[in-house]
Amino acid sequence: MGASIREILASKGPAEGVAVRGWVRTRRDAKGFSFLEVNDGSCLGSVQVIVDAGVPGSDDLPGMTTGSAVEAVGDLVESPGGGQAWELRATRVALVGGAPDDYPLQKKRHGPEFLRQIAHLRPRTNLFGAVFRTRSLLAHAVHRFFEERGFVWVHTPIVTASDCEGAGEMFRVTTQEVGGGKDSPEDDFFGKSTYLTVSGQLEAETFACALSKVYTFGPTFRAENSNTTRHAAEFWMIEPEMAFCDLGGDMDLAEEFVKVLVRAVLEGPADDFGLFSRFVDKGLEERLKFIVERPFERVSYTEAVAILEKSGRKFEYPVAWGENLQSEHERFLTEEHFECPVTVHDYPEAIKPFYMRRNDDGKTVAAMDVLVPGIGEIVGGSQREERQDVLERTLAADGLGSGYDWYLDLRRFGTVPHAGFGAGFERILMLVTGVQNIRDVIPYPRTPGHCGP
Amino acid sequence: MGASIREILASKGPAEGVAVRGWVRTRRDAKGFSFLEVNDGSCLGSVQVIVDAGVPGSDDLPGMTTGSAVEAVGDLVESPGGGQAWELRATRVALVGGAPDDYPLQKKRHGPEFLRQIAHLRPRTNLFGAVFRTRSLLAHAVHRFFEERGFVWVHTPIVTASDCEGAGEMFRVTTQEVGGGKDSPEDDFFGKSTYLTVSGQLEAETFACALSKVYTFGPTFRAENSNTTRHAAEFWMIEPEMAFCDLGGDMDLAEEFVKVLVRAVLEGPADDFGLFSRFVDKGLEERLKFIVERPFERVSYTEAVAILEKSGRKFEYPVAWGENLQSEHERFLTEEHFECPVTVHDYPEAIKPFYMRRNDDGKTVAAMDVLVPGIGEIVGGSQREERQDVLERTLAADGLGSGYDWYLDLRRFGTVPHAGFGAGFERILMLVTGVQNIRDVIPYPRTPGHCGP
Repeated sequence: MGASIREILASKGPAEGVAVRGWVRTRRDAKGFSFLEVNDGSCLGSVQVIVDAGVPGSDDLPGMTTGSAVEAVGDLVESPGGGQAWELRATRVALVGGAPDDYPLQKKRHGPEFLRQIAHLRPRTNLFGAVFRTRSLLAHAVHRFFEERGFVWVHTPIVTASDCEGAGEMFRVTTQEVGGGKDSPEDDFFGKSTYLTVSGQLEAETFACALSKVYTFGPTFRAENSNTTRHAAEFWMIEPEMAFCDLGGDMDLAEEFVKVLVRAVLEGPADDFGLFSRFVDKGLEERLKFIVERPFERVSYTEAVAILEKSGRKFEYPVAWGENLQSEHERFLTEEHFECPVTVHDYPEAIKPFYMRRNDDGKTVAAMDVLVPGIGEIVGGSQREERQDVLERTLAADGLGSGYDWYLDLRRFGTVPHAGFGAGFERILMLVTGVQNIRDVIPYPRTPGHCGP
Repeated sequence: MGASIREILASKGPAEGVAVRGWVRTRRDAKGFSFLEVNDGSCLGSVQVIVDAGVPGSDDLPGMTTGSAVEAVGDLVESPGGGQAWELRATRVALVGGAPDDYPLQKKRHGPEFLRQIAHLRPRTNLFGAVFRTRSLLAHAVHRFFEERGFVWVHTPIVTASDCEGAGEMFRVTTQEVGGGKDSPEDDFFGKSTYLTVSGQLEAETFACALSKVYTFGPTFRAENSNTTRHAAEFWMIEPEMAFCDLGGDMDLAEEFVKVLVRAVLEGPADDFGLFSRFVDKGLEERLKFIVERPFERVSYTEAVAILEKSGRKFEYPVAWGENLQSEHERFLTEEHFECPVTVHDYPEAIKPFYMRRNDDGKTVAAMDVLVPGIGEIVGGSQREERQDVLERTLAADGLGSGYDWYLDLRRFGTVPHAGFGAGFERILMLVTGVQNIRDVIPYPRTPGHCGP
């Protein structure tokens, strides 16, 4: 294996016998020597390798075309050029695997649509390499955030027999033949109809009522036929859940979560972040610093509606108490009115699901959304209804019945105030990279009509 | 939220105004005062709370039964009893949520079958609390292992149109009606037939051929109708993949991986591990130290077969070159013959899948399995076939055709030697806890006929 190019470029001094292994980005031939830019995906940067004519392996230089795999061994010396600190003077080179002329990633720039069609090759480009390194960095930051705070990671199930919160259309999972007509769930693999999960929240609640602080981080699914830049059929969600916690504690955690994740990217590799802030979204750094540096404003839904109504602004969707806030409303609040991240709380009961805790006013529930500039809602959560009689009423009102006995058991046996939230991982990744299309932050995106390798 | 009981029990000195929130494990009433054992799932231990008759809230003591939720505030003082360092002298208590007499987890011991039927309550028991805390600890250790070594975590897709390695029966994922007769994949959500993934390896290879070192850690699925203590329909797998790596480097990583994970549990919370080693499996500590302390022996499949044949041992399954090693053979090698963990390499081509690299002997492939005592195979991996012409032959021999163009592209464009392995997360968790049934290490296990919440 040897050292990665990230490690080599971070070298503290010159070194002999250094091996560079990677893929050629470009080759330039000069009189008596050639330059190879070699990248191994461990970082954005490439190592410049100087190959003098005549060193062992240099006969294969013509085959070292863009996309080919090479190995070069030599001396790491200070680079006279301004681009980077170190370059490699090869004492030998080897062509490991060639790339013929039809290699799709020649030096010219490629559009995102074209690159989506070659999802198996696009991580070899600068942009997608940076996106997927950042995806990993952010995912590790998610785990670190919760681990440091004593949360237990719970692997809630992917295949489920309950339709959870009725949060959206579900995929059926089956070993029966497909095609309609003679569905016999009792003969199916699990002896009943099963689906891909839309949320691990209810199961996470059962673990929070045992281990106090838990979270999930895993794939979730929606069979919604929406072809937008924000929707994918398969995406990753983060769902913490805390016992002995009310809406205030929930908002505290959510706001800290957003700040810590944004900070992790700002403090991550400067080259990847620099690519996003220079080439993807010139306002990125300013927007992220805005989130990290400003305290979050908290405002009730009722106050937020009053602010929007008094704003004199013409919105595409009218503002009215009892209606959902639209993205344009959310962005007005965070970008223009408060000029800081905003947490809106206590939403109308009628637009929220059965499990959210009913407030004493008889009109609202203990729900909250965290809004950030450029995106709008980034986190949504609530205090959960812990009173058995109230929960039975709200379940019945939503037409949900006996399948929730286990969920009601949490309220029968040692019920406690508890709260949690859900955050779409890709939405956060789009926030911190500036990438506008969810298909470009998922290794192999699944959308209606698209399930390529 | 306040401090967890884990933090309170680790207190460096006495303290006033400490709040304990959790669930009552037991209550004992004495003359003029009561003892409450309160647990919040943050650790195995409970805090003993002494409630004098007459302190505010003590009227509710009769309701503070096993399973009820309580809050107690008071002074943390040295415990005169031997059990633990600290106890709480309550200045006030409150009953948060009662638990009626039909609470299923009364003090008596419950069998695992009964507890599986109340999977939503079982994490409140000592054993399952310890198992799921250890599951989280081990999962975090997996990520740390790879993050420290510069691996990028890749979220390979769950829903897939390719049947990967033909590794097993697959679940169909559909939005069509179910029941047989008129399957029209072109009208399905993705415009083709789709399934739940059995492995992310092939997709991980595409990312390794761009970012050099990657891994997956996520759910995988088998629709196999096996009702054993080792099989679940949904389980988590870890699959690293490294470019510029051969079988030797792959074995190095796999052996280090096993040792580091076992050590993470040995060095984790002593109370949870103590429960496993005292009550679940008395040989556990010895077996795990065996794995951590001994160097791994490496032996070729051919040598292993010779050893087994010469052993004079009567095996249930006969030993013959060309046949798979059975668990009894694997355990003989590691537990009796070598008395250390064993890595077996270079297996017969005929029993291994198309993507493993063909060796020059024309008979074997560059595959390897890591064997540990008590379990047998814990990791399986291989160097991948990087030669385009050979891979085209092995694909054709397995009857796999045009759907693998993208996979062949890795060999067309800058092909490199690369290798990786797969490890079943639950199998490792069973190894480190001594728990014998996979249903007891998964929060909500999915097996034939069982998909409960």
